Amino acid sequence: MTRQELYQNIKKKKSFLCIGLDTDLKKIPRHLHSFSDPIFEFNKQIIDTTHDLCVAYKPNTAFYESIGSAGWESLEKTADYLKKFKNIFTIADAKRGDIGNTSSMYAQAFFGSMDFDAITVAPYMGEDSVTPFLQYEGKWVILLALTSNKGASDFQTTPLSLRRGVGGEAKEAKLFEQVLTTSQNWGSTDNMMYVVGATRAEMLADVRKIVPDHFLLVPGIGAQGGNLQEVVKYGMNKECGLIVNSSRNIIYASDKQDFAAKAREEAMKMQKEMEKLLEAR
Amino acid sequence: MTRQELYQNIKKKKSFLCIGLDTDLKKIPRHLHSFSDPIFEFNKQIIDTTHDLCVAYKPNTAFYESIGSAGWESLEKTADYLKKFKNIFTIADAKRGDIGNTSSMYAQAFFGSMDFDAITVAPYMGEDSVTPFLQYEGKWVILLALTSNKGASDFQTTPLSLRRGVGGEAKEAKLFEQVLTTSQNWGSTDNMMYVVGATRAEMLADVRKIVPDHFLLVPGIGAQGGNLQEVVKYGMNKECGLIVNSSRNIIYASDKQDFAAKAREEAMKMQKEMEKLLEAR
Repeated sequence: MTRQELYQNIKKKKSFLCIGLDTDLKKIPRHLHSFSDPIFEFNKQIIDTTHDLCVAYKPNTAFYESIGSAGWESLEKTADYLKKFKNIFTIADAKRGDIGNTSSMYAQAFFGSMDFDAITVAPYMGEDSVTPFLQYEGKWVILLALTSNKGASDFQTTPLSLRRGVGGEAKEAKLFEQVLTTSQNWGSTDNMMYVVGATRAEMLADVRKIVPDHFLLVPGIGAQGGNLQEVVKYGMNKECGLIVNSSRNIIYASDKQDFAAKAREEAMKMQKEMEKLLEAR
Repeated sequence: MTRQELYQNIKKKKSFLCIGLDTDLKKIPRHLHSFSDPIFEFNKQIIDTTHDLCVAYKPNTAFYESIGSAGWESLEKTADYLKKFKNIFTIADAKRGDIGNTSSMYAQAFFGSMDFDAITVAPYMGEDSVTPFLQYEGKWVILLALTSNKGASDFQTTPLSLRRGVGGEAKEAKLFEQVLTTSQNWGSTDNMMYVVGATRAEMLADVRKIVPDHFLLVPGIGAQGGNLQEVVKYGMNKECGLIVNSSRNIIYASDKQDFAAKAREEAMKMQKEMEKLLEAR
């Protein structure tokens, strides 16, 4: 999906919501366990009842891997099912990244075998760990910049001392700012986005100074405590530029027979709030 | 496996070799394609002919994921097969790391479902992305510090400016040094190791100043250009403290019927060199 198509979907659906498919066998309604693939059945029903309210889905690979090859099959079936919906952007939340020949294999897994639109990638190993994903036409890297968890302050917000050339002025930047600056040379606004956590909404202003035009994937709304209005205030740009994720608040709104209907209610609350915020801009 | 058991295996086998199972359908001998699971068959034959020469095996998850759920099954069968060998340390080279509840799911995948001894983890997301792996008794985190690829110089070797308290002295450390320093508080020498690439062997001296006693997993020997003698010179400690990985040089020594025998020859060359280096200490 191109950036323009994504923006058109946001305008049409009046939503920049991404629903996180963190599907956990221990949390899904009991009655689904009678299906041959309870994980896929859960995802299918969530997708069927919410796809008009969101622009993206984001399965987190950890939840699928935790139950082994059967979980990987559920992930494949989910990716395949999502392809039915032409106006949906699909994100493999995999946080991969390795030396070049290995990242190529991950790209094959998520773009070749499974045909996701995007994958989240960790920046620690630098350029050659990221560029293999950018070789795929029409696919996206969503690079971790400033994450939503407590541990983000261990390294991501640590100041670096950067000296540009001999006798050059000393400059200071936080690690996540340097990740944003450096990685802009690896791709473009048409194939790269960044993860910026909603739990640090005020820092979105700093992020926007460096990447005014890139789309940002914003996790941390809801269960993790992030605030949507703050995210929009500091992070929205003229083409929206935001995909805001919510997982647990939506998909686990109920653990009964009515789980899909309740998920729709929660997703609609988010969509309505997003509609207002988009109009106010 | 405990640290003491690992060290005993190194002494008994006179080897600190890890064989990387980067098993690629395109590179394995053609005749194996007639087996129902060519990837597992390849791994099994490599393991059968080399397990007395090495102390560890390290399947890289990317290679298995690249062929989908069938690949994940081959990985599960390989992990299971390796359990037969009591004196083998098993490493899932997965480079995972996510927010706490998600890292718990990855820990379940690699320590619960598959029973690997260790997993490689990326440090970018900080403490709460790593500690869920440390909850498993007898299991290990191998944290990325200084990797063997070119992109390691994008962020890992960038100097940070660290100020300790108000009026405290300004101190400088490279990002990988800070990762080593900070992460020591998360675990101990009994459940944490670090990845330090052989392509930067001279920097092993800097690494040893910070983590004199930890085991280091050293990739980059062979195909990537690292030198074993240099690694030992700067990195070995009194309990060896090194696990040196070789993948392509060993497992793809031949693409014919004789691939396992040729792999054994290459592994034995490495083991003999290691034996000399261990004796010289």
